[in-house]
This record gives sequence, C-alpha cells and structure tokens, in this order.
Amino acid sequence: MTRLFNDPAAFADEALEGFTAAHRRWVRPVTGGVVRAGATPAGQVAVVIGGGSGHYPAFSGLVGRGLAHGAAVGNVFASPSARQIHSVAAAAHAGGGVLLMYGNYAGDVLHFGQAAERLAAEGIETRTFAVADDISSAGPDESAKRRGIAGDLPVFKAAAAAAEQGLPLEEVLRVAERAGGRTRSFGIAFSGCTLPGADHPLFTVPEARMAVGLGIHGEPGIGEEPLPTADEAARLLVETLLKELPQDLTGPAGQRAAVILNGLGSVKYEELFVVYRKVAALLGEAGVEIVDPEVGELVTSFDMAGVSLTLTWLDDRLEELWRAPADAPAYRKGALDTPGPDQDGEPVTADGQDTAVPVDNAGPATPAVPAASDASRRAAATVLAALDAVARVVDSHADELGRIDAVAGDGDHGIGMRRGSTAAHRAAAEAHRLGAGAGTVLSRAADAWADKAGGTSGALWGSILRALGTALGDQDTPDARRVAGGVTEASAAVRALGGAEVGDKTMVDVLVPFADALAAATAEGLPLTGAWDRAATTATAAAAGTADLLPRKGRARPHAEKSLGTPDAGAHSLALITRAVHGALLDHH
Amino acid sequence: MTRLFNDPAAFADEALEGFTAAHRRWVRPVTGGVVRAGATPAGQVAVVIGGGSGHYPAFSGLVGRGLAHGAAVGNVFASPSARQIHSVAAAAHAGGGVLLMYGNYAGDVLHFGQAAERLAAEGIETRTFAVADDISSAGPDESAKRRGIAGDLPVFKAAAAAAEQGLPLEEVLRVAERAGGRTRSFGIAFSGCTLPGADHPLFTVPEARMAVGLGIHGEPGIGEEPLPTADEAARLLVETLLKELPQDLTGPAGQRAAVILNGLGSVKYEELFVVYRKVAALLGEAGVEIVDPEVGELVTSFDMAGVSLTLTWLDDRLEELWRAPADAPAYRKGALDTPGPDQDGEPVTADGQDTAVPVDNAGPATPAVPAASDASRRAAATVLAALDAVARVVDSHADELGRIDAVAGDGDHGIGMRRGSTAAHRAAAEAHRLGAGAGTVLSRAADAWADKAGGTSGALWGSILRALGTALGDQDTPDARRVAGGVTEASAAVRALGGAEVGDKTMVDVLVPFADALAAATAEGLPLTGAWDRAATTATAAAAGTADLLPRKGRARPHAEKSLGTPDAGAHSLALITRAVHGALLDHH
Repeated sequence: MTRLFNDPAAFADEALEGFTAAHRRWVRPVTGGVVRAGATPAGQVAVVIGGGSGHYPAFSGLVGRGLAHGAAVGNVFASPSARQIHSVAAAAHAGGGVLLMYGNYAGDVLHFGQAAERLAAEGIETRTFAVADDISSAGPDESAKRRGIAGDLPVFKAAAAAAEQGLPLEEVLRVAERAGGRTRSFGIAFSGCTLPGADHPLFTVPEARMAVGLGIHGEPGIGEEPLPTADEAARLLVETLLKELPQDLTGPAGQRAAVILNGLGSVKYEELFVVYRKVAALLGEAGVEIVDPEVGELVTSFDMAGVSLTLTWLDDRLEELWRAPADAPAYRKGALDTPGPDQDGEPVTADGQDTAVPVDNAGPATPAVPAASDASRRAAATVLAALDAVARVVDSHADELGRIDAVAGDGDHGIGMRRGSTAAHRAAAEAHRLGAGAGTVLSRAADAWADKAGGTSGALWGSILRALGTALGDQDTPDARRVAGGVTEASAAVRALGGAEVGDKTMVDVLVPFADALAAATAEGLPLTGAWDRAATTATAAAAGTADLLPRKGRARPHAEKSLGTPDAGAHSLALITRAVHGALLDHH
Repeated sequence: MTRLFNDPAAFADEALEGFTAAHRRWVRPVTGGVVRAGATPAGQVAVVIGGGSGHYPAFSGLVGRGLAHGAAVGNVFASPSARQIHSVAAAAHAGGGVLLMYGNYAGDVLHFGQAAERLAAEGIETRTFAVADDISSAGPDESAKRRGIAGDLPVFKAAAAAAEQGLPLEEVLRVAERAGGRTRSFGIAFSGCTLPGADHPLFTVPEARMAVGLGIHGEPGIGEEPLPTADEAARLLVETLLKELPQDLTGPAGQRAAVILNGLGSVKYEELFVVYRKVAALLGEAGVEIVDPEVGELVTSFDMAGVSLTLTWLDDRLEELWRAPADAPAYRKGALDTPGPDQDGEPVTADGQDTAVPVDNAGPATPAVPAASDASRRAAATVLAALDAVARVVDSHADELGRIDAVAGDGDHGIGMRRGSTAAHRAAAEAHRLGAGAGTVLSRAADAWADKAGGTSGALWGSILRALGTALGDQDTPDARRVAGGVTEASAAVRALGGAEVGDKTMVDVLVPFADALAAATAEGLPLTGAWDRAATTATAAAAGTADLLPRKGRARPHAEKSLGTPDAGAHSLALITRAVHGALLDHH
C-alpha cells in the first residue's frame, strides 16, 4: 500500500515537485507537467506524452533526448486536463508541430483531443495517437478499444526517435501508427495497489490465485486461474501473445521483436528474471529473435503485484528506432561518449539454446580423486554415514533453527544449514563412489557446504570439514586420537575465521568444550564412540548455556544485546550434529 | 510476497540465468556470477563486488563500464562462497590486481576474506573492502561493525571509477576507504519481504507503525514509531544523518553530498518523490549542495516496504568519481555519444528555494473578469449557490460513487468528481468575488473542474458547465428558457465529446431526458424551480434505468458487459446533482 504521503489530495503535485527536484538535469517544470531541460533543435517535431500519476516511469520519467519532449501529468490515475496538456505542448513545441501520445483511455482521449483542437486553433500543427496494446481489454476485431499499458514505451520511443532524426510530423505519426499496430501486451496480477489515503486496495485476488488480463488502474481482469509457477506464467504470457500476430506475419519464426517484461510494482526484479528466463527460451523455440529486451518496471501501478509481457514486432526501420539512444530520467540507452569493447551493438539473439545459458554455479567438473588406502576408504564409508546423519538432523530441525536465529538474526540459519549439509552429503557420496579416502571425502564435502550454504555458517562448516579432512588424510586409519586432533584443529580454524571466543555466545561456545572433552576422553583411552558420546553430552550442555542475556560478539551483528531465551542457533545446530554423528558412529562401529 | 518461482531452491540460479539472458550486452556468466561482457584494458584494477541474491540491482545489475568488473552472486540472502568469489575474480582479473567489495556482513566478510587469500596464493594481488554505512546497526564508536546497505552503490562506484582511470590497486583501495568513511545511511520500514516459497514475511510491523533502522534481510530495527507523513519521514532521515558528520566537517553548511533515496521494493517511485521533495528542501536549509541525486530502487530486499537515505560527503575527488559515466544493466549515467544542449554537466544545487520548485499546476494567475450586467451578477450568486450544493452532494456521496464505479470501472469516479466539484466551486467563488457575471462564473468553474478532476468525468463536466456559461452569458437575465437551452447544448456537447448515445448506459442516458424534460416544462411556462424539479425526477428514474444488463459503449471500457445491479456511476452522480441544484434554486428563489 501507499504509506508515505502528506495530504492525499496534494500527492500528485508533490510527487511531481520531488521528481523535478531530483531530475533537473533532464527536465524542467511547466504548468501541467515537465518538458526537456535542454533546447530542442528548431523545427523538430515535439512528442508530448502524458497520463495520470501513479505509473512511474510513465510518464514524466520518459522525457529526455531520444524520448519524449514533454509529459503532461494528471492527478492520481486521472488524465491531465486539456489545459495542462496544451500548456506542456506549447512549451515543448519547437516549430515542427506536436504529436500527442497517450494510453487509450476515455479520459485521455477526450482531454488530449481537446488540447489538440486548441493547439491547432493557435496555428500549431498537432496530431494525436493513442496506444492500444492490451489484448485482454478487447478482441482483435475491436482493437481500437484496447487500453494502453506497457506498450506505451516502445510506441512512444519509436515516434520520438523518428522525431529526433528530423522527420516531419506526418511521418512521425506514421511511425507511431506502425509501431502501435505491431505492439501487443498481456498481463497477470495478484493484487491491486492501495492509493494514497485509501484504506483498501483497488482489487484483491484470492490467495494462490491470479487475475488474467490485468489493467493498470485496478480494472478487473478477464478471468481467474490458480497461481502458476514462474515457467507456467511465462508460457501463458508468450503463448497468448503468439496467438495474435500482426496480419502481415505468417508466423513468429524468423521474426524480430522488442520484448518488455514489465513489473507493475511489487513483483520484483529477481522474480521477473526467473520468468524472463523461460520467456526468452520459449520465444527462442518459436524462432523469434529478441532485440534489446527490457526486464524491469517501465509502466507501474503503485505497488500493484502484477507482470505483463509486451512484444513489438520489428521491421528494419522499427528496429533502428528501438535501438536508438535515449537519455531520460528513467530510461537510458546507448553508447557512452567513449565507446568501449562492449559497445559493439551486436544484436542479442534468442535461440533457446542461447538465451537460457546455464550458469555453472556448481563449479567445474569434479576432478578425479587422489589415491587412497583401503583403510581410509573404509573410514570414508563411516564419514559418509556421518554426513548423511548430519543432513538428516539438520533437515528435520531446519524450521526450529530458523526460529531460533530469527530472535536476533535474519532467521535463515536453518535454510543455510539445510542447503549446506545436503550438498555436502551429495558431494561426499560422489567422492566415495569414485574411491576417495576419508580426507578427500571430507574436503569435497567442505567445498560443497561452503558453496551451497553461503553465509557465515557455510564458511565455518566448510572450515570444520576441511580441518577434519586434512587431519584424517587418505592413507592412515583414522583412530580416535586422530579424529580428536582433527576436531581440535577445526575448533582453532573456526575461532581464527570467525574472530569469536568462548563467551561470545556463538558456536565457539560449543565447539571448544566439545573438542576439549573429545581430546580428554580419547587421551583416557576411550574408543571413538564412547569418547564422542561423552563430548556430545558436553556440547548439548554448552549450547543451552548460550541462551542467557550477555552480549555476543561477531562482526555486523549489532542487535544481539537482548535476552534470547533460546540457545544461539549456530551453537544449537552444532550440538544437534554432534549427537547425530554419534548415532552414525554407533551404527558403523 | 514473492509469488513467481519454480523450485524455491533453484530461485537464485534461475534469476541469474534470466538476468544474464536479458543483459548480454553488458555481462557474461561465469561460475559463481557474472563479469563484464567486454574486455577490460590490460593492467586495470578489477573491482569485484558481490553478496546474496534478493537485492537487485545489487549486485549483478552494477556490473559494467564505470562500475564493477564482476559480481559474485550468492543464494537468496546468503553470501557467495569463497570458491564462487574466487572464480568471478579470476575471470575479471586483467593483470592489475583485484579489489573485492561487499556489504559488511559476517558471512560475506568470511567468504571474501577466504577468496582473497586464495587469489593472493595464486599471485593475484588482492585487497578487500567492506561497506559499513548503516548507522542504525552500531554506534559511531563501533562503526566497523555496521552493516552495508544502500551505501554500497556510491562506495563501489567511487572505487570502480578510480580503477577505470587506471589507478593502481593501493590507490583504488584508498578511494574505497575514503568513500566508505564518508558514506552514511539510515532507513525506516513498514513490512519485510516474503522469500520464495515461504508462507510468511521475515518481519511485520503493526499497522500505522514503522520500524526505525531497517536491515535489508529482515533484521529487526532499533525502534518502532507511529507511521509518519512523508514530510516527517524526510525530516527523521535527514536529521538523523546530519547528526553524524565525518569528523573533519564542522557542519553541513557549504558541504556537497551525493544523495540516494532508496526504495526497498514496494515503497514506490511517486512516494519516494514526495519524500525526496522534503529531503531536498531540508538539506538545502542546512546548506548542503546536492550532487547528482538518485531516487529509486538501488539496493532492495524483494518486496520489502521500506526506504533509506544515504549521504556521501564529497570532496573534489569523490565528486569527480560520483559524476563519472557508468553503463551497467541497472545503473547508467553519462553523456550520449552526441552531446546535446542538456548535457552541460552543471552541478545540481539544492538551496531550499531551488529544490522544491513549486510546480504551477494551478495555471497562470487568474485574469480579470469581463464586465457583467447587474442582473447577470445577481444570477451569478445563484450559480455559485448551485455549485456549492453540487460540491456538497458529491462530497457526501463520493464513497458510494466510487463503489458503483468499481463494479465495471476503476473505482475513481467519486474521487474525481469530488476533486472537480470542489475546485469548480472555489474558482466560481473567486470569479464571483471579482464581480463576474453568471457566464464567466460558470466558464471559470468549467476550467477548474476539468483541470483538477482529470479523467473522463472531468472533461464531460467541464463541457457541461462551459455550455451553460456560454448560454447564460454575462449580460442577460438568465430566465428558465435560457437555462433550459443551455442544458440542451450541454447535452449535445457531452454526446459529441464522449461519443455515447442514449442506451449506452452512460450519463447520456440521464442528461438527454433531463434536458428534454426541462425544455418541455419551461415551454409549458413553468418557472425554473418547478421545471427543474420535474426534470430532476425524470433524471433520477433514468439513472436507475442504467442498472440493467445491456452492454455500454465508450472507448476502452471493455469490461462493462455485465449486470451491474447498480446504476452507472456517471449517470447516478448526474441525477444526484440535478436534485441538489433544485434545492439551491429553491433557496435562491
């Protein structure tokens, strides 16, 4: 919802004031809106766009070289008045006439039409063009009734780039008509925005459902369906748009298209990228060549949750205009003044294979494992069983670990530990399958844990497993004292890495007494299982001791000065793991 | 909440795939993240940034010329692993060494530190720098413990611009340290984000409250306060940051600062502009010169509702680096290849007076009113009373009108009518005070209604009042027949403007029979009040008749083909108004 405002009635005016204050390099305020801050060459057609407030970057954010010459800015979701449009257009006019452009809504059609009449009466040659790209708002036989949504941008840009090239008014209008005729959009929504000062959203969609065929002012959609996965959403958007090609195209294969995946406000960038990944692949499969795609927020509706896909089917001329540079507050494109090696302007193609380049986050192919003794390979089986037990206990306690972590941290300890321990077990199993010794199994598990878990716990657990692996090696039989020595080194590594000491209320409070108890028990001659059992009991008691009121150290964790009432999440998970490993040792005894 | 995903565990990887597919002009994927698509000049220091996913544009969106050379991308809200960072840095390295930069979180500190060690061990000179700008996360005496939030951007950019200039590694590091030491941020939040696959947000704030001192991963703030107005929020942000200047500054007056007002995800652009309007004014009052401000989403947390303010206190060198061009997927700055008149690079100053330039949406100063007869001036008093009655009845029915409109439209009919009728009454009162006749009072009211209401209803009501004003004029006594003639002309104007006819289920269905009834009654010789009474009764019946199932016309209103059950909002408001005007006529009889 929209929360930050002063007087709701003044919202649109105050937003425009703040916008111009922040962007005076690009725009200057005039009655009714903004025009470019710099002069327009005499005789150039002025492209003046406009519409209601609440759709930023539309419309004021699209004023600047290569884009609009001015924008008339109405109240929230309301067309600017004819007088406002007239005022902006008169200020933007540079002697070449005016093209008024806007989304196809009844109010805008009326006011821009009235403004055009007034401008013409004053001797300023004026044409109008309403963008009507939303295919859900009327059938193909009534395409003149369609609303304008994110297709505003490519149509505005085509006409403005043509004006920038010095074309006369009639030709700029023809470019707008051609771009408009080849631009289609379709969207889905999950919730409407709440206007400044209102106490409820313009519309709601039941949980786990979506509205199909969004409007950017809270207009109801044309249907409702279950919430899709990102890939299903991409398929719906692409397939719907591919059903209605411009009449002169026999099919999508071999065609080029400008592609805009537009977020309406609170469907955010990472979600848009996940959807775009599939959009690009599907268009690639259909043989469509994607030109300069845009994935982001271009036409919004405050914090509405929705996403739309726009395709502009390009010919050579439209492609040139779509690729042309632009420099507006919210849309910048084109070469810097000192072109570099990445400025070659090569077309970006999408051929399915190419667009969904798999990102090799798993790292390079697993290298062969070093030679190992039979004894170490047998020990590796026990290590693998222990790592299996670790992954299981972490998985079954992940929610609890998250809740404990949320008391003083960001609540993701359980998620990270689950990712790390699962990946560690998988990497260990692969190494074991390849005949690795205990040391290599542990070091592979260490890398996988750190890679997949990320965060602090990932680094610390990576260093624990690595220290253990180094201590065990791939040749010797890992007896109890060697294991205890490895745990002692792991304890030292964690302290060095994390900078924490006993008493700081971290996992070090558990790891140090555990290591000490294990070393003492093995020094007494206890076998590994018995020694580990005793040390694990020590660990559990120590974890409970982290639950009191004292501050805890650690960089960038400033909010821990409170009574936790529960043990530290890292300490608690370590204690759980020591107990689980004991179970695995007993089984493999 | 985050709704569009496939497997939540694959979210970060799939987002990165989609991101690279959309931005191959700028970046190419490598294990662990992305690097610039183009080559870096040999010997240039490589600035490699990184952190968890979920903060776009941080971090992958900030890779490109003038900004980072590579970004290591971790899982959702988790540091990338040392191996991932190492992989990205090795790919980005161009022989000049590597500066690793990241926000100051324990996990990032660990993993980037480990990666630096590995790079150094391979002979790649490497330094690290953690941004710690969030002043709410630790006191000034513990500033090394602070978290990194939106201050990442100016600090990354300073170092990267220095690298682009060819400075050696130690000097690039010194730039990072100087920029980091002079960058402070502070934020407020209203709700946390909901991670992909999670069923609840990371944190919640009670309604009408805000958390002070936000963290970008859902870390709890340092306090809770009542929800502020936009101006109050601006004051809190500015005053908090001005309390902690760099030690070498004796006060803010005369200092220059880069200013970033950052939205966390669902505090949207218009809200940010309303807040920025006051931020700029307050900084101006304090004597701070604002340099190249940024108002938008630079470091996010999915759809978290929050906003933060960042100030980087500039010296000449830091200003040069902040102003330097950049061309990254989500941050572009600098001249196009063909500089135009708006590319002069003049500093943007903020001096209170200057930043909050009042946008003159009210239009030019009211011109003097034309001469009017005494009779017409007396009639103007009745017109004014009628407009007062109109504004009152609309105000008291605005919510009802909105609900009716929401059945088939966007629900803003009540808001628009209230804005229009209020402005019309105010303009009429001013004209009346200046001695205007009935015609001028009506035409001034007409302009104000159209300007302030916007939308379709604004245009139509503007044309109704204008037609009436023209019919009444400023000289003659407006008798019943003249009024009826004006209403008939208003009816014709509305049909011409809106393109609707009787039966289309719009206000025309009411206006036409009203005008006809009024004309018939006055032809019978009824006085105005009696004639108007009869016509208003006709209007009320006609409005009810718009509530049935037939389709209604009108451009870009495709969703009206449904049983409304309630009258059309525009028809209903017209009927209400005719009745209210009758009351005013009776009073002034």
